Amino acid sequence: MIDFKALFKISYGLYIVSSGDKNHGNGFIANTVFQVTSKPPKFAVCCNKNNYTAEIIKNTRAFSVSILQQEATPEIYGTFGYKSGRDVNKMEGLNLKYGETGVPIVLNDTISYFECKVVETVDLGTHLMFIGELIQSEVIDDTKEPLTYDYFRKVKKGAAPKNAPTYIDKSNLEEQTESKNRYQHQCTICKYIYNDAVEPIPFSELPDNWVCPTCGAAKSEFIKI
Amino acid sequence: MIDFKALFKISYGLYIVSSGDKNHGNGFIANTVFQVTSKPPKFAVCCNKNNYTAEIIKNTRAFSVSILQQEATPEIYGTFGYKSGRDVNKMEGLNLKYGETGVPIVLNDTISYFECKVVETVDLGTHLMFIGELIQSEVIDDTKEPLTYDYFRKVKKGAAPKNAPTYIDKSNLEEQTESKNRYQHQCTICKYIYNDAVEPIPFSELPDNWVCPTCGAAKSEFIKI
Repeated sequence: MIDFKALFKISYGLYIVSSGDKNHGNGFIANTVFQVTSKPPKFAVCCNKNNYTAEIIKNTRAFSVSILQQEATPEIYGTFGYKSGRDVNKMEGLNLKYGETGVPIVLNDTISYFECKVVETVDLGTHLMFIGELIQSEVIDDTKEPLTYDYFRKVKKGAAPKNAPTYIDKSNLEEQTESKNRYQHQCTICKYIYNDAVEPIPFSELPDNWVCPTCGAAKSEFIKI
Repeated sequence: MIDFKALFKISYGLYIVSSGDKNHGNGFIANTVFQVTSKPPKFAVCCNKNNYTAEIIKNTRAFSVSILQQEATPEIYGTFGYKSGRDVNKMEGLNLKYGETGVPIVLNDTISYFECKVVETVDLGTHLMFIGELIQSEVIDDTKEPLTYDYFRKVKKGAAPKNAPTYIDKSNLEEQTESKNRYQHQCTICKYIYNDAVEPIPFSELPDNWVCPTCGAAKSEFIKI
């Protein structure tokens, strides 16, 4: 028997993985970033094959990882977590630098970053795992705590997007019994659910300028479910 | 330029990865455990090639992962983190169950566990990455927080053993300037350093029954460095 709740206890951080170059850069929010060897230092990142950044990393053969701080803004994780670089230029207006390989490095809400050259690509079925050798790393702001996936779920009430390796189909969880005459509203952008049964204010009474706590979408982007 | 401090901001948990069978089981403390796909759920674990458990996983083609709770005892992470199953039977006296593949699953200090069948092995140089498909998972104790590597380093003052993917050679860090007439003592078992300059009591004044906070070794196992 598989209890998906058992898997929620695995610890992850949240990162922006970027690739491309000055003219055409893109990135996405990843939680599966980890060091796999120390001599030489190598890192792995997992990326859904449909993800636009996967395509770019395959061509560029390099990527950067920005380690996000705990209080990262919804704009940052909304843009990088729930939008596609096929539709918008995610890098526009951001504080960027360019790595030794030319890849963009996002500095907004970033504690530290590192840059890797891809040395191997592993096909995992739905996802690709890029394994990169470290070529540079730098601390940007040591005063902040890193954003963890646990904090994002519990405090920010965020959910993994469909392309994430840790995406959980809600129908797999046995729960949701109470909500009788209260409603649930779902963000059509990021799928975040606002549940009247557990929130202090019903959705209908939220101010019009309220935004999705996960992706920053307007209240009007929500539908009753 | 590489600043190794930048890499300390990556988030990891701490886990016991076990393999083998009822007669001959072994496990080690891993921090690189992560989900890599959701359909089907697949997980990756990294393991140094010299690690005895790597040998056993290669033969058994299955492993279990016990997610440790924050207040795991030094006996547990001392045994699994800093001793070799070639020298001791790590499973002796523990609260175990056996998975569908027959692998042992450590339940001591465990929040939840999962069991995987190996579907791929990636050679990373010094380490092997085992990719396993989920076959079962269970929550054991939902009231506890998971132990993170950050907590282990900051609160428990633990260090990654030499075989870990995240091992940092201290000579790579520019630090340690103050300790003038104070001493440092190092645990010969796990390499933990007790530094008089930052501790409230000098090492020499610690009681004889004091044990290494990282691996539980006796005070007599420390040497002045």
